[in-house]
Amino acid sequence: MLNTETVNRRILLAERPTVFPEKKHFQYDEAAIKKPGKGEFVVRNQWISLDPAMRGWMSSMKSYIPPVEVGDVMRAFSAGIVVDSNHPSFTVGMEVCGVFGMQDYAVSDGRYVRHVRPGIPLNAMLGPVGLPGITAYFGLLDIGNPKAGETVVVSAAAGAVGSAVVQIAKMQGCRVVGIAGGAEKCAFVRSLGADETVDYKGGHFSEAFSQAVPGGVDIYFDNVGGDALEYALDHLNLQGRVVLCGAISRYNKTSSQGPGNYLSLLINRGRMQGLIYFDYIDRFDEAEEALSQWVREQRLKYKLDIVQGLQHAPTTLGKLFDGTNTGKLLLKLFDDLESKELL
Amino acid sequence: MLNTETVNRRILLAERPTVFPEKKHFQYDEAAIKKPGKGEFVVRNQWISLDPAMRGWMSSMKSYIPPVEVGDVMRAFSAGIVVDSNHPSFTVGMEVCGVFGMQDYAVSDGRYVRHVRPGIPLNAMLGPVGLPGITAYFGLLDIGNPKAGETVVVSAAAGAVGSAVVQIAKMQGCRVVGIAGGAEKCAFVRSLGADETVDYKGGHFSEAFSQAVPGGVDIYFDNVGGDALEYALDHLNLQGRVVLCGAISRYNKTSSQGPGNYLSLLINRGRMQGLIYFDYIDRFDEAEEALSQWVREQRLKYKLDIVQGLQHAPTTLGKLFDGTNTGKLLLKLFDDLESKELL
Repeated sequence: MLNTETVNRRILLAERPTVFPEKKHFQYDEAAIKKPGKGEFVVRNQWISLDPAMRGWMSSMKSYIPPVEVGDVMRAFSAGIVVDSNHPSFTVGMEVCGVFGMQDYAVSDGRYVRHVRPGIPLNAMLGPVGLPGITAYFGLLDIGNPKAGETVVVSAAAGAVGSAVVQIAKMQGCRVVGIAGGAEKCAFVRSLGADETVDYKGGHFSEAFSQAVPGGVDIYFDNVGGDALEYALDHLNLQGRVVLCGAISRYNKTSSQGPGNYLSLLINRGRMQGLIYFDYIDRFDEAEEALSQWVREQRLKYKLDIVQGLQHAPTTLGKLFDGTNTGKLLLKLFDDLESKELL
Repeated sequence: MLNTETVNRRILLAERPTVFPEKKHFQYDEAAIKKPGKGEFVVRNQWISLDPAMRGWMSSMKSYIPPVEVGDVMRAFSAGIVVDSNHPSFTVGMEVCGVFGMQDYAVSDGRYVRHVRPGIPLNAMLGPVGLPGITAYFGLLDIGNPKAGETVVVSAAAGAVGSAVVQIAKMQGCRVVGIAGGAEKCAFVRSLGADETVDYKGGHFSEAFSQAVPGGVDIYFDNVGGDALEYALDHLNLQGRVVLCGAISRYNKTSSQGPGNYLSLLINRGRMQGLIYFDYIDRFDEAEEALSQWVREQRLKYKLDIVQGLQHAPTTLGKLFDGTNTGKLLLKLFDDLESKELL
């Protein structure tokens, strides 16, 4: 059996995907565990976050950060415990999270590394109090700027970001419509407080969307692009806002088509604006403070979709793109490795 | 000969266009001149403004204002002289402008009617100090929010709105790139102070656009849609702004295609926002004050494209859509009417 006390298991980017990310795009690898330099520490990962953004990081296209190079450890948010340290603020035994990559051990100088908030489970720091929660918080509150009584529509509403948007929008006194695929996801979204759900897999998506927004759409929080974005623009109210957070329906497509009715933004004097969570890095404390308080009060509920074992990373990542996961998708790491074959 | 002292010549909407507006969509008509009621006055039009927005007003599609009904006088901005009045603020002999329609005489209660600014010619109230100037002013300054040193790209830069945007952007210390069709228009745009022009009819539009914006695009002021919008999104800088003012390349198309690269707004955290001048009606004074001062100082130059005679309205309107006019397109009204046939 592998000694994970001395060996660092890593998943490397082997090949750039053109469509879906699959097993063949990754490669299993083992390396020695590095020692921390001056001002550095070593974290042992316990949780690895799987996020739609990874599809972009695997691509060579110009984006908001440089792509992962082929042969490098796949970039990932993760959370773990400090096991060795020459850093004054990160001492052995501390729980931390950061961009530690798809591997057991990472060396860090502490930049962009976050401590765990009191009373918050380590894995929730990758979910409602992490990237998805922070994205929902600033995307809805800062870019969407909701007012009580307004109608907020959220796509991928059963996902990690979407489910937080649903609940934060309800806290603002909005009428909330969640779009999700299938009866089970829709039931989950309603359990979070959504006033209405639209099942995009239920047939007649366009009609169902229309019926769910009799008063039009004031804010559309878009995680998917495609038809949902078109429908939201069709129903946009005056001075409506479209928060562009993602476009998961498009990430694996090589051909592209924009919203044919984008001129709704002109007719309705609407605004469509993109958001990347790290633009708000100076305000993370504000968001984490609010989000962790809501989690403690159980006003912000969340669902984790946990897959066990590092070797499951490739197929697990694929779940994000075929719509088969609900809530925040996480890999839980163990010492045991059934095989060195990726799954 | 027709006695235009007693007869009101009118152009009615006869039919809604599906593609270009043409002669067959309008109908010539004569009616009696109405007397003003209590609190009303009668204006005799001297100038009728032809604007891209008219294409939308002729359509039955949902838009920012109700369409013109078939059989009604075609809606138009115009400028003229008060010839009869029961209104305390609009007395006989005053020069005024407003939405008086494609006709000789209009009755008004004074709502949304503007007085002529001192030292400004009546027809300039339909151009640099009117709808086009006000649109340029708020679109660029309020939505675009330009900072000195930023690159501003303007499409239809030889047009009434575009030419004002070029000059106002230069006043803000921006680097300005104007897009126009043909060498003559490009020369005009450079004469207004543009640092660079791109001739979209000159071949290799995409390459020419790229070469003109080596430092990317901070603000794209869009009057045309289509390829220019795609290229601007391709070159958008971080936190770039797209001001949606119009999409003249699309108004006469029944099929629609949106910008396939709209996710540039996400990657670059950009903002695309629509603008209709009348949302700023409470701030018209501010804009008119600034614009008229710039016109007096000759810092805001303008070109008028004047066509004489009411019966030329249909073909003249068509010039907006085939790219054959430069500057603000106006109809000058005369008593003489060569024929009752529309041209």
